[in-house]
Amino acid sequence: MSTADLPEANVFARDCASRPVLQNITGRWGALVLAALSEATHRFSELRRHVDGISERMLSQTLQTLERDGLVHREVLTTIPPHVEYSLTELGHRIATPLLTLLFLVEESVPEILAAQIEHDRTH
Amino acid sequence: MSTADLPEANVFARDCASRPVLQNITGRWGALVLAALSEATHRFSELRRHVDGISERMLSQTLQTLERDGLVHREVLTTIPPHVEYSLTELGHRIATPLLTLLFLVEESVPEILAAQIEHDRTH
Repeated sequence: MSTADLPEANVFARDCASRPVLQNITGRWGALVLAALSEATHRFSELRRHVDGISERMLSQTLQTLERDGLVHREVLTTIPPHVEYSLTELGHRIATPLLTLLFLVEESVPEILAAQIEHDRTH
Repeated sequence: MSTADLPEANVFARDCASRPVLQNITGRWGALVLAALSEATHRFSELRRHVDGISERMLSQTLQTLERDGLVHREVLTTIPPHVEYSLTELGHRIATPLLTLLFLVEESVPEILAAQIEHDRTH
């Protein structure tokens, strides 16, 4: 299969290849793992502590998916004992940039959003 | 309940209020509905056509969630028959901005990501 003849991606189209990719990036854990790795290279156990609440299994799956998408680089260090380090690829950093802006904005907007929820529940 | 005494939001913390909000915004349909509304005000049926593949039930749920979060404004027009129009609030527009940047970047990166997947599947 070649990617040269792909139709232009359109995330609004039902079968567009961008939709599952978007889910990997913005899904429950993908966004947080990308954000954590955008700050620094991490080992598995460091990531697990940083992304509070993620299970070992989910972190492992998330890293595999992001590695397959070309966003995360997995490096096995030949130390004794061997260590595995995860970092963002160049594409991973490019995509993490607007994602981080979005995360910061959501964090910043939490009081405003909670106030909207309270007002909504009061009037509906 | 007051939102004045909230601890600062931190999306990496397990119980932070920003996590469910982030899911509403970046979840399977939230992101596409916000993106569609960032372009123009839409009626329900227009949105349903625009966000290809969304069911009536999912669109209705997504709009309710985004309205409760203070991101979407629902306006009942006193026409005959009455129409309902959906638009982004000021907060919705603010949050849609980095979200759109992310969506465009993901669309643009699809060939690169598919190529990475092919290479990964060949070597693993």
